[in-house]
Amino acid sequence: MRVWVFGDDIDTDALAPGKYMKFDIDEIARHCLEAVDPAFASSVKAGDVVVAGRNFGAGSAREQAPAALKHLGIAALIAESFAGLFYRNALNLGLPALVCPESRRVRSGDRVQVDFEKALLVNLTTGETLACEAIPPHLVQMVRDGGLLPHLEKRLKCPTTS
Amino acid sequence: MRVWVFGDDIDTDALAPGKYMKFDIDEIARHCLEAVDPAFASSVKAGDVVVAGRNFGAGSAREQAPAALKHLGIAALIAESFAGLFYRNALNLGLPALVCPESRRVRSGDRVQVDFEKALLVNLTTGETLACEAIPPHLVQMVRDGGLLPHLEKRLKCPTTS
Repeated sequence: MRVWVFGDDIDTDALAPGKYMKFDIDEIARHCLEAVDPAFASSVKAGDVVVAGRNFGAGSAREQAPAALKHLGIAALIAESFAGLFYRNALNLGLPALVCPESRRVRSGDRVQVDFEKALLVNLTTGETLACEAIPPHLVQMVRDGGLLPHLEKRLKCPTTS
Repeated sequence: MRVWVFGDDIDTDALAPGKYMKFDIDEIARHCLEAVDPAFASSVKAGDVVVAGRNFGAGSAREQAPAALKHLGIAALIAESFAGLFYRNALNLGLPALVCPESRRVRSGDRVQVDFEKALLVNLTTGETLACEAIPPHLVQMVRDGGLLPHLEKRLKCPTTS
């Protein structure tokens, strides 16, 4: 898993640009983060990891922001901090997101392994293991189930009313 | 609604101190924020509003942190940014939380009105209205219903399996 490093305050408009919001997620994902790194969307590979600074996912609540990252195959998001609505949406979509106070120690191109359940980021390039903030077991399970809706379907075993 | 202003990086241990975690929410709430403002928990009144800086609710995922604020009758939380897990827990408990880039314009003791649906903070003391980041309608409805569990009970109309 190759790391793509981004800075502070990456907002939802950088992740899912407003001018493409009328298109489907395939098209939106193609433009994910292009304002920050034009090569990202065409070069990223399934299983890669995004590592960022503070306040990742700031701005609007648009669910397409984490959806675009998931669509590109991003395996996990690691940041010093996340914007609340983005963080909620990411976990609800089944996209693992971990808060790591030392995320700045990771470099673009490093190869890493992320253990979501244990909240660990293992940097295979440097040999370092960085501790992230623990995720409650019920949220680990929800993400493993693929997000909130599949998780509820599995737990509730009855049709929703809408 | 009187405002209580706090700074950056107020963590969950300040909100729900670790040494009281073995007690019930009534006792935990009595010590809410005592490390920052010893008068807070005994002076705050139902309907008051907490206004903070960046990264409010950082640290552990303990649900007692937003639960203590709710137990004290806090009507809304306004911050420049929230920690992701705290933010998730707050909305799930039915505690309105809004991101306001200009939260620093509010002073302790100001009287305010918070419109969660319109994402507005009206400062009755200064006459200013501050725009907060919009909340998606389904989350407004969830908070209005009293949080995630009452919201799901209402929507799903069938018993859970656990």
